[in-house]
Amino acid sequence: MRYELYYWPGIQGRGEFVRLALEEAGADYVDVARRAGGLERMFRLLEGERVARPSFAPPFLRAGRLIIGQTANILLYLGARLRLAPASEAGRLWAHQLQLTIADLVDETHDTHHPIASSLYYEDQRPEAKRRAADFLKRRAPKYLGYFERVLELNPAGDGHLVGARLSYPDLSLFQILEGLRYAFPAALQRLERKFPRVVALHDRVAERPRLKAYLASGRRLAFNEQGIFRHYPELDAR
Amino acid sequence: MRYELYYWPGIQGRGEFVRLALEEAGADYVDVARRAGGLERMFRLLEGERVARPSFAPPFLRAGRLIIGQTANILLYLGARLRLAPASEAGRLWAHQLQLTIADLVDETHDTHHPIASSLYYEDQRPEAKRRAADFLKRRAPKYLGYFERVLELNPAGDGHLVGARLSYPDLSLFQILEGLRYAFPAALQRLERKFPRVVALHDRVAERPRLKAYLASGRRLAFNEQGIFRHYPELDAR
Repeated sequence: MRYELYYWPGIQGRGEFVRLALEEAGADYVDVARRAGGLERMFRLLEGERVARPSFAPPFLRAGRLIIGQTANILLYLGARLRLAPASEAGRLWAHQLQLTIADLVDETHDTHHPIASSLYYEDQRPEAKRRAADFLKRRAPKYLGYFERVLELNPAGDGHLVGARLSYPDLSLFQILEGLRYAFPAALQRLERKFPRVVALHDRVAERPRLKAYLASGRRLAFNEQGIFRHYPELDAR
Repeated sequence: MRYELYYWPGIQGRGEFVRLALEEAGADYVDVARRAGGLERMFRLLEGERVARPSFAPPFLRAGRLIIGQTANILLYLGARLRLAPASEAGRLWAHQLQLTIADLVDETHDTHHPIASSLYYEDQRPEAKRRAADFLKRRAPKYLGYFERVLELNPAGDGHLVGARLSYPDLSLFQILEGLRYAFPAALQRLERKFPRVVALHDRVAERPRLKAYLASGRRLAFNEQGIFRHYPELDAR
């Protein structure tokens, strides 16, 4: 099966959580909108009249006749097929629950630079962004990271993974979260991440997995930038 | 199976999306935190050391030995058991995708009154709330409602339901969205909802289902209020 991923070209964004799963599994996939004519194909599937089940927004995945939208839903589907989720229903629900909590953290991270409206420039909501980012770094990011630290600590199979004794897609997403937070808030994270050694250790192990390591060093891995979810605006970082 | 729902007492909140599914199915369930001693039981499951898979926040559902968190994940689990989701994998993924899009709309609705921080009072972020609510009513709510209108229109099985020819849990959640938006923004909705006749018609049919109708008239249905997700602050409504 050759998967087709549809996502905005030029940013890691939410598409990156899907890319990491496809790359770690060595799956055959095309990042459609980064190819010539691909953006037009993406818009046809989003807005065209011939798609019975359109997605609200990218990313979405085409898998044969299926078109699947919503990042966590794509990972729910791929997790079972790429051996990146447990086989049992209880395990799959737990992995998905963690992914949905990661999605909430992603949303809150986005809103640190866009607390008023996605339709406005960052520069038009900078004072509000400063207030929201300060609360995010003081309360929300520690709460989320502390939660994942605790999930690792409580895992009966050991603190090497979020779910059971093997790698699953939420591990990859938690890696990406820490990468993104470090990019966006380097000063704050330097202090913050000391409190969450298990999260950092998981991040480091994921980064060393052979396929992931090769991917991260390749041109397929886009750089973080100020159009994505994780943006570095020095005035929002806590010093 | 007697389900145990754990959610904050006193508000509909995200727990209501689960309650509507349980009520429509006539499921045997207990709304634990609304009973004597129930809030303490909820905190023990959230923060206690004896839970291997704790939830980040309510709502969560106890089903035998399973504890399942994240609203959409609970509905993914219940949908299959309460006959509120299609039997096929493609149908279940589509229903879940719609539910996750509804969850995004719920988050954005919440942030109209709390754009800066959940830890602050509304009164401490009122100017920012006005700006965010204005953008929400002008751009975001129409975009989401227009999307669900289009999903109904494109449904090959007819525009009576979001998924296939039968009621599924996203139908119940879309009913709740319209209820909530009407409560929070009565003036804006009066104008807005005319553009989305299929969404309104679905809402009206859901409200007339015998079990739902009985539930909505019962004491189990809490009233909307200004501690929940959908809050009525007249200054945020568009006149």
